[in-house]
Amino acid sequence: MTNNQLTESGRLRHFLTIEGLKRPLLTEIMDRAEQFSSISHQQVKKVPLLRGKTIVNLFFENSTRTRTTFELAAKRLSADVMNLNISTSATSKGESLLDTLHNLESMQSDMFVVRHNQSGAAEFIAQHVAPHVSVINAGDGCHAHPTQAMLDMFTIRRHKQYFPDLRVAIVGDILHSRVARSQIQALSILGVGEIRVIGPKTLLPTDCQSLGVHVYHDMEEGLQDVDVVIMLRLQNERMQGALLPSAREYYKSYGLTEEKLRFAKPDAIVMHPGPINRGVEIASTVADGPQSVILEQVTHGIAVRMAVMSMTLGSQSEQEGQA
Amino acid sequence: MTNNQLTESGRLRHFLTIEGLKRPLLTEIMDRAEQFSSISHQQVKKVPLLRGKTIVNLFFENSTRTRTTFELAAKRLSADVMNLNISTSATSKGESLLDTLHNLESMQSDMFVVRHNQSGAAEFIAQHVAPHVSVINAGDGCHAHPTQAMLDMFTIRRHKQYFPDLRVAIVGDILHSRVARSQIQALSILGVGEIRVIGPKTLLPTDCQSLGVHVYHDMEEGLQDVDVVIMLRLQNERMQGALLPSAREYYKSYGLTEEKLRFAKPDAIVMHPGPINRGVEIASTVADGPQSVILEQVTHGIAVRMAVMSMTLGSQSEQEGQA
Amino acid sequence: MTNNQLTESGRLRHFLTIEGLKRPLLTEIMDRAEQFSSISHQQVKKVPLLRGKTIVNLFFENSTRTRTTFELAAKRLSADVMNLNISTSATSKGESLLDTLHNLESMQSDMFVVRHNQSGAAEFIAQHVAPHVSVINAGDGCHAHPTQAMLDMFTIRRHKQYFPDLRVAIVGDILHSRVARSQIQALSILGVGEIRVIGPKTLLPTDCQSLGVHVYHDMEEGLQDVDVVIMLRLQNERMQGALLPSAREYYKSYGLTEEKLRFAKPDAIVMHPGPINRGVEIASTVADGPQSVILEQVTHGIAVRMAVMSMTLGSQSEQEGQA
Repeated sequence: MTNNQLTESGRLRHFLTIEGLKRPLLTEIMDRAEQFSSISHQQVKKVPLLRGKTIVNLFFENSTRTRTTFELAAKRLSADVMNLNISTSATSKGESLLDTLHNLESMQSDMFVVRHNQSGAAEFIAQHVAPHVSVINAGDGCHAHPTQAMLDMFTIRRHKQYFPDLRVAIVGDILHSRVARSQIQALSILGVGEIRVIGPKTLLPTDCQSLGVHVYHDMEEGLQDVDVVIMLRLQNERMQGALLPSAREYYKSYGLTEEKLRFAKPDAIVMHPGPINRGVEIASTVADGPQSVILEQVTHGIAVRMAVMSMTLGSQSEQEGQA
Repeated sequence: MTNNQLTESGRLRHFLTIEGLKRPLLTEIMDRAEQFSSISHQQVKKVPLLRGKTIVNLFFENSTRTRTTFELAAKRLSADVMNLNISTSATSKGESLLDTLHNLESMQSDMFVVRHNQSGAAEFIAQHVAPHVSVINAGDGCHAHPTQAMLDMFTIRRHKQYFPDLRVAIVGDILHSRVARSQIQALSILGVGEIRVIGPKTLLPTDCQSLGVHVYHDMEEGLQDVDVVIMLRLQNERMQGALLPSAREYYKSYGLTEEKLRFAKPDAIVMHPGPINRGVEIASTVADGPQSVILEQVTHGIAVRMAVMSMTLGSQSEQEGQA
Repeated sequence: MTNNQLTESGRLRHFLTIEGLKRPLLTEIMDRAEQFSSISHQQVKKVPLLRGKTIVNLFFENSTRTRTTFELAAKRLSADVMNLNISTSATSKGESLLDTLHNLESMQSDMFVVRHNQSGAAEFIAQHVAPHVSVINAGDGCHAHPTQAMLDMFTIRRHKQYFPDLRVAIVGDILHSRVARSQIQALSILGVGEIRVIGPKTLLPTDCQSLGVHVYHDMEEGLQDVDVVIMLRLQNERMQGALLPSAREYYKSYGLTEEKLRFAKPDAIVMHPGPINRGVEIASTVADGPQSVILEQVTHGIAVRMAVMSMTLGSQSEQEGQA
């Protein structure tokens, strides 16, 4: 698919994937999020930036947590929010999905926040929406989850400042993780010194080398001297699919315990996109421990989503100005 | 049922049916919608007209599309909106329905937008609400859907100006369609030159003549020289009920194709209340073609609903002023 | 459990239970509600007191009615409201409930309105939330429903002024009623002259005497000369549980009919937390009769909830001021 998320002048029109974006844009997202972050601590956590705008949460896959953060981000920008949960069955025909979209467009919606279990869904929708609508990918299949990746980058920057000096390890089911894909792209673009992935062979993509990452199957080796440990959520269906022996076995090999964490740098931070499986991919003592920044990630998620929402809608008015 | 939707001075207190309304009132709704229509294109699509008002979407029959347009209309008027989906089973006893209503009234709700699968439900509710509550009928059984009819009139006026000069055809299941009933009434009141209905005998009411409409069973004859073609959605349950042979047969006889559309005037517009069944009552090439104004109808639906909401609540403050 | 709902200076930080509160605080809630009550009759029923605040309705037990009143109260205070219905199954492990809470906290929520079918749930949550979050108990198991009790007190004060002069009877399933428990506590704290409970032995707690209430098993005796009759809703599951013979039998003995109501003072008011079971615990002629204040209770529920919400969030800014 062609990357149609930028305007001619290189500004964000949609936010579909990290792939193909340039470092200054990622930095701009983080800088803008930094401003919104301070708003969240004010008495009145609201700015009138998107007042009168209509944002539609278009969730084809249920996710209370992600929907909630987008809804809060939109409300804190003073936008009106509509939540639509659309079962994929009702829109199994491409035609009727498009009819749904065109109807929502005709109601003068300004933005669709799309969650879908099929890779490429957000991009498909972005290719078909009217010029006045921006699309934000809130997770599509195994493909991408760019706002999650950017809130992770924002969290890392808050703690570690300079990306090129960093060694970052991502642990778990890299193969099926849209989060990991977007994280690896973002870390690469930001020039991180070394990106490592750690997991069993069955859960690592075969093209890891070409992604520019170092592959480890052992936690002791993989975590050696890293600055950031990103744990991924283990999906239960992987276990049923016979890709993995058992949760207990997995935890023994790849669960992040205090012992394993000691291989990382003493000031390494521990991240997780949530929701966490305590005792499966991470020990409670680590999740709740001093190196964990897991709840900070949630907080930063609001600011980063406010940043992306305001940037994409801002690029629209730029286009209108040109027209 | 007595028509209790007007105040003593003839202003809209509820909006339950088109039946019995006068031409100046329909024109006022369209004029008011024209004003709101321009708001929808502003940067800030919001006016503070109903700030602090509480509007309850009381949907006894599920309809994401209609609920969404009312919710957006209310939010763009700055009202607070509550969505309540009430299964009819829980309120099968008239008593408990009234208890529910009186409770919502007691919460100082200002408006109920009612959708119900029983004809007369909105009127029943309007007869029992407190004086400070307005009721909008968002579709009741086979009876009426007045906001849909008014957005259709608004769309026709946008394209065709002078109603007496027009020939309008409504195609499909007239018998069971609350949309068609309300449309025919509105077209009559607005003095449309000729109203035609086209459909198989099983789907036309027996009292068509008394409605002042001309009846056709053949598309070629019925569409001859019309200015407006209004297609109705074919409900699948009609097919199962043996009123119709099959979707394929229906499409062959009454589906609007480019060929059939050629019998209408060259500048005829094609309308549909949505959601459309492509290949059942309308060909995709027509639905997406240059004569289709189907998506415009959706856009105008917001403006017309804003008009009706602000007029009914406005008539309340008039009454308060008199009291 | 320790009562941790007050700040060090004795102001409301959470609102979990009536138990242990002092009379001046209950009076302050009612006085504040009185102010909000007048707002509800203004053209614009909204004050900007909680603008920019995020209030989460955390309902582990479904209740459209209670959720609706809290949502309206929050919106009339200009807060942003998020509705989360959480099935108890998904959070059966204490750990994951806390993870959910900490995530919502991290999104800078300011208040959780909690409904749960387990006694003590709201208090448990209040013990674990961050300092910037207030918790309101919207009903927990058989334990407490403090906002319901306070709206009842407010309603009584509106009609009867001086509490020490009053004789109040609560009728029905006292044993399982969180409403009755909170009412008895509030009536005691406000110094009501005599509190009576009336019901069959199977539905009265064994420690009634220690609660300082008088116990009656007969309506004629129990209602003698009372100023206020509070009817409780009869839960159907009690009947299935063999604690009661049948709805018909119950109505004969304890249903409030016009005949039985005559034993009370002529100006006695009749209350019910709703939703009412007509013909089970109350006759329609009484529920809709001149002595009924049941719908007033609903109206006052909004004002009382606005009072409690603004007081608990107000105590937060006090703490911030001290910090």
